[in-house]
Amino acid sequence: MRAVIMHGPGDVRVEDVPSPELLEPTDAIIRVDAACVCGSDLWPYRGIAAQTKPRRMGHEYIGTVEQIGSEVREIAVGDFVVGSFMASDGTCEICAAGYQSRCAHVVPMGSVGTQAEYARIPWADGTLVKVTGEITPQRRRGLLAASDVLGTGWFAAVAAEAAPGKTVAVVGDGAVGLLGILAASRLGAERIVAMSRHADRQALARRFGATDIVEERGDAGVERVKALTGGYGAHSTIEAVGTQEAMQQAIRSTRPGGHVGFVGVSHGVTIDGSDLFYSTVHLHGGPAPVRRFLPELIDLIMTDQIDPGAVFDLTLPVDDAAEGYRAMDERRAIKAMLEF
Amino acid sequence: MRAVIMHGPGDVRVEDVPSPELLEPTDAIIRVDAACVCGSDLWPYRGIAAQTKPRRMGHEYIGTVEQIGSEVREIAVGDFVVGSFMASDGTCEICAAGYQSRCAHVVPMGSVGTQAEYARIPWADGTLVKVTGEITPQRRRGLLAASDVLGTGWFAAVAAEAAPGKTVAVVGDGAVGLLGILAASRLGAERIVAMSRHADRQALARRFGATDIVEERGDAGVERVKALTGGYGAHSTIEAVGTQEAMQQAIRSTRPGGHVGFVGVSHGVTIDGSDLFYSTVHLHGGPAPVRRFLPELIDLIMTDQIDPGAVFDLTLPVDDAAEGYRAMDERRAIKAMLEF
Repeated sequence: MRAVIMHGPGDVRVEDVPSPELLEPTDAIIRVDAACVCGSDLWPYRGIAAQTKPRRMGHEYIGTVEQIGSEVREIAVGDFVVGSFMASDGTCEICAAGYQSRCAHVVPMGSVGTQAEYARIPWADGTLVKVTGEITPQRRRGLLAASDVLGTGWFAAVAAEAAPGKTVAVVGDGAVGLLGILAASRLGAERIVAMSRHADRQALARRFGATDIVEERGDAGVERVKALTGGYGAHSTIEAVGTQEAMQQAIRSTRPGGHVGFVGVSHGVTIDGSDLFYSTVHLHGGPAPVRRFLPELIDLIMTDQIDPGAVFDLTLPVDDAAEGYRAMDERRAIKAMLEF
Repeated sequence: MRAVIMHGPGDVRVEDVPSPELLEPTDAIIRVDAACVCGSDLWPYRGIAAQTKPRRMGHEYIGTVEQIGSEVREIAVGDFVVGSFMASDGTCEICAAGYQSRCAHVVPMGSVGTQAEYARIPWADGTLVKVTGEITPQRRRGLLAASDVLGTGWFAAVAAEAAPGKTVAVVGDGAVGLLGILAASRLGAERIVAMSRHADRQALARRFGATDIVEERGDAGVERVKALTGGYGAHSTIEAVGTQEAMQQAIRSTRPGGHVGFVGVSHGVTIDGSDLFYSTVHLHGGPAPVRRFLPELIDLIMTDQIDPGAVFDLTLPVDDAAEGYRAMDERRAIKAMLEF
């Protein structure tokens, strides 16, 4: 089958590899309908995350179940499914508490590679959610977004405790930040401040529910958020970048007692304990437990209440995957969808 | 009047200073009945926190109101009062949200100095709570504890979301950690793991509700907590020290999705962003908004439901303040009470 392989920074190829097989009785094999390129895939693409040998890429996916292991009960051959970027058993105490991305038996789908015609999904019952109803093109894109960027933005907004009466600041205007705006809006936030300096992303931010745009960054950005909130800072801040500057901006933009939800994969971030102590914010984040939110998100998508797939502004056949990476790296595209 | 002055590391003296006067119409002057030495006072005592000139000490207090400013409405001359270590206006959005220690007009009582015969209390209406009923010796000690260490331990337990069915680990066996145990117990925690290697403190920990004692520290301590919790880690962890080792131990002892409440005044702590990201814990702490909890704590103390004053294992006349500092520095005393 064809699969996307990264050979090194900037070097993405589509090559023939063996098709996956069932390895565990709890596995399923899906025929991938669509996958996408993630902002986190750009870290190795840019050479910031170390890579020593060619590796399979992709952890987002929708598709149709082709085979199931002997212990799979909830998912059947022929089901159209969405799963999280972290496969989870669905039964351990951590999963039960809604933190499936840190399941005691978690398998990162990035280690499997879903930018491929077929993918093995470990813990099929715990990981996959069946979709029923007519899958229109808009819903299809939305379901693909649910697999990671929507679920991650949603978790960020929940971690930031976005809610009615609150002002939510959003640091980062990639797909996750933009979908954090959509989530904050659905959660009833009164005011949503998008921090962005790109006209196309600002437009999508407003479409998803942003009420204010702040173009300044760093201290100037913090001051603008404070000026918009009576000097106190935002009640809730979403951090969707993963850099030191973004994390500091998020913490400093938040009022004492407020909440920072951080989902940008942390690269080179260190938090000064004393700064955090005196900020008195709540800090919560990490790899999003997307599986917790999938049933609700699928329902919102399949009833056309939300259109998260609008983040896909570039759709390519999988053979052109390299262009998807390039376009995102150069910020020509917010998010690239790969079709099979 | 007599007041405690720190001239430099290890050099604590009781000296005559001018009595305080009302400076703002929202001030009150109290005659201090008792104050105490705080673990945080030991940082400058040990020369770890920089100090360039002699300074007044103390931020914990109970006493009787002697004078009030023209705008004070809730507090009257003659009232017996308890206040927080942070004076707060009680009216700003941050106070209204329960974060009085970060009030928009906060005045740290350490900048006033309450280890003295009299003290000026800024924002009397927002800061002080009147106590009614018979003040027995046990209740008196309890009320003094409420001013900081009990309120801080309580905040830590609330920040760590101690609750029925949960296992709470407590890093730090000073007065705050011990009272965090008391708080976790009152909040209904199922299991409370005290991390302590001192027999006297272990005994008080058990009296306050600890169900397990762990003597190991660092990675070994983390492994012990995990072994006690099915390999998952504690649901809730209280960090009541403020060092790098304690903070790391707290984060690593906590299961994914769990809560760390940290109240040890942070000294030289840096948190690796990637470690925090993948820990997926909730992190919340800072200077405790003791004022939020005071009415409830006073009620529990005045009805003899809790005995937090048991942390005072040394009571001295204020003239012997230096011995109080020495005894705490040498860990001969958990907490020293100074009487006037």
